[in-house]
Amino acid sequence: MTRQITLKSRPIGLPQFSNFETREVLLPELAKGLVRLVPHTLSVDPYMRGRMNDGPSYVAQFNVGDPIAGGGIALITESRAAGLVAGSFVQGFIPWQEEIVMDAAGLNIVDETIAPLDYYLGILGMPGLTAYFGLLEIGKLKKDETIVISGAAGAVGIVVGQLAKIQGCHVVGIAGSDSKVDYLLNELNFDKAINYKTTKDLNAALAEACPSGVDVYFDNVGGEISDTILSQINKFARIIICGQIALYNATSLPTGPRIQGTLLKKSALMQGFIVSNYAERYPEGLNALAQLVVSGHLKYTNTIYHGFDKLPEAFIALFEGKNLGKLVVKL
Amino acid sequence: MTRQITLKSRPIGLPQFSNFETREVLLPELAKGLVRLVPHTLSVDPYMRGRMNDGPSYVAQFNVGDPIAGGGIALITESRAAGLVAGSFVQGFIPWQEEIVMDAAGLNIVDETIAPLDYYLGILGMPGLTAYFGLLEIGKLKKDETIVISGAAGAVGIVVGQLAKIQGCHVVGIAGSDSKVDYLLNELNFDKAINYKTTKDLNAALAEACPSGVDVYFDNVGGEISDTILSQINKFARIIICGQIALYNATSLPTGPRIQGTLLKKSALMQGFIVSNYAERYPEGLNALAQLVVSGHLKYTNTIYHGFDKLPEAFIALFEGKNLGKLVVKL
Repeated sequence: MTRQITLKSRPIGLPQFSNFETREVLLPELAKGLVRLVPHTLSVDPYMRGRMNDGPSYVAQFNVGDPIAGGGIALITESRAAGLVAGSFVQGFIPWQEEIVMDAAGLNIVDETIAPLDYYLGILGMPGLTAYFGLLEIGKLKKDETIVISGAAGAVGIVVGQLAKIQGCHVVGIAGSDSKVDYLLNELNFDKAINYKTTKDLNAALAEACPSGVDVYFDNVGGEISDTILSQINKFARIIICGQIALYNATSLPTGPRIQGTLLKKSALMQGFIVSNYAERYPEGLNALAQLVVSGHLKYTNTIYHGFDKLPEAFIALFEGKNLGKLVVKL
Repeated sequence: MTRQITLKSRPIGLPQFSNFETREVLLPELAKGLVRLVPHTLSVDPYMRGRMNDGPSYVAQFNVGDPIAGGGIALITESRAAGLVAGSFVQGFIPWQEEIVMDAAGLNIVDETIAPLDYYLGILGMPGLTAYFGLLEIGKLKKDETIVISGAAGAVGIVVGQLAKIQGCHVVGIAGSDSKVDYLLNELNFDKAINYKTTKDLNAALAEACPSGVDVYFDNVGGEISDTILSQINKFARIIICGQIALYNATSLPTGPRIQGTLLKKSALMQGFIVSNYAERYPEGLNALAQLVVSGHLKYTNTIYHGFDKLPEAFIALFEGKNLGKLVVKL
């Protein structure tokens, strides 16, 4: 028997503790091709909110009663799968359970000699790849351009900003606390950072931070922050729609200014994406990111919750903006 | 002395006759480099509405008191410019005047042996080039894909639909009258056409017309018609923002469903453009279009108003959807 955390009911609006249930389940036998795992670190990510809804999203839905599942690092304790031996750590898409028996397909061994284990959930995992491909394939940043990043202190934002600095851009981050702003300015060397929660006139603050206008907007949040940024884009701007965390808990269809007129006037491009569109190119992305991590050009930060039972609390904290960098739960 | 039509006041909402004024002006002397012109056909286009506003648009504003100006075909009656001789017809950006003395720069001789003169304001002019580059550079249509065109019976829409048919696509047009629908289906061989004014459930009609969903949306109108189409896009859809005629006369910032969530879920691209972004490639576009016109693969239709004094009425008619194909005024 082991414990698992399931989706007890679909959240309406902000997820609540009551939407989760912990229960005991029997593990299957370790048949051929399976591995036995003990999770080491589990990831909580904004996109998982969409999977809790009933309607179609860009990832498959959780069924009510299913275990929650997401990115994670786990230790192999027993293996009947070729190429995976007990004692190794693997990264993959795993359920929220204290012990797991699962198919080895999709699990990848992670190399602790390159970076600490939890990097593989962040800068060397989905968030890092999201930043890398979004910026490269949609942003097409050029030196000296101005990029604005919303959710700038989150798992994706901190990588986007650092990659843009490496490319010689003017980097402006929007975040929700003074400590995040301080981190962006003083640890990651962003050119400007704005606390949208305490800034009285975001429009004016943004105009001051972006004296040459906005060439690229990396959007992790959506909503009114985006409205302000989009009102200051330059001709031929590129807007990367990576996340819309401000809207994930909306209970009715969000409305706002129609953006098409702005895109027309500015000959601007807006494109949504999910990192798995680039799955075939993950090795390229991981290699580029790993080189920058090893050479010290990319810094990494996470916020760690401790203990299996903290998973729902950590997930809910995402929507309260409590994390600096990647939010993970260590078991 | 000659008569000219000026912008008397900036329209609020739909343009009115009272926004225009006809007055007499003196023509300058025919100095070196200038030509004397008599307009043959003048173009009225939706984008000109934006030039009548005060705020910045994607084209420069008209000042109150200035003559309205736009695309036109004119006969050279006298010339002191190299390469342009009296008796030739030219296409260019010219003021609404009965006689004009202007700089020859920017005027291009049009070839009546390839196509009738008014084609150079439509399928072999800005509308044709707009259709060509929007589809080629943003739409990136592939055979068997489904494209939906709003404002499908307009000057741009009729070219877009025919180019898409040539590429082997499933072409669906949205228009505002039964005669336009009939024209799209029976003259231009669109696969489906929908009269949005009489269709009770546009969502259902569109779903029926697009059984495989929408891969490309060529948007000439914006507003609620676009909302419906965007709700049916496929993964990796491309949305070409060419015009927003439904919104040009809006007196407050138009609001509607936030589109970013849809772009994210569908990994879709939305891009605005103005044809002059591709000015360096006009010869390529005109050559391609001319070949298709000459070979009979592209049909052309226009709606003609007659007489200089009809210019304001023709312009206003654009926003009432009265035109089939390109709307022009013959003098």
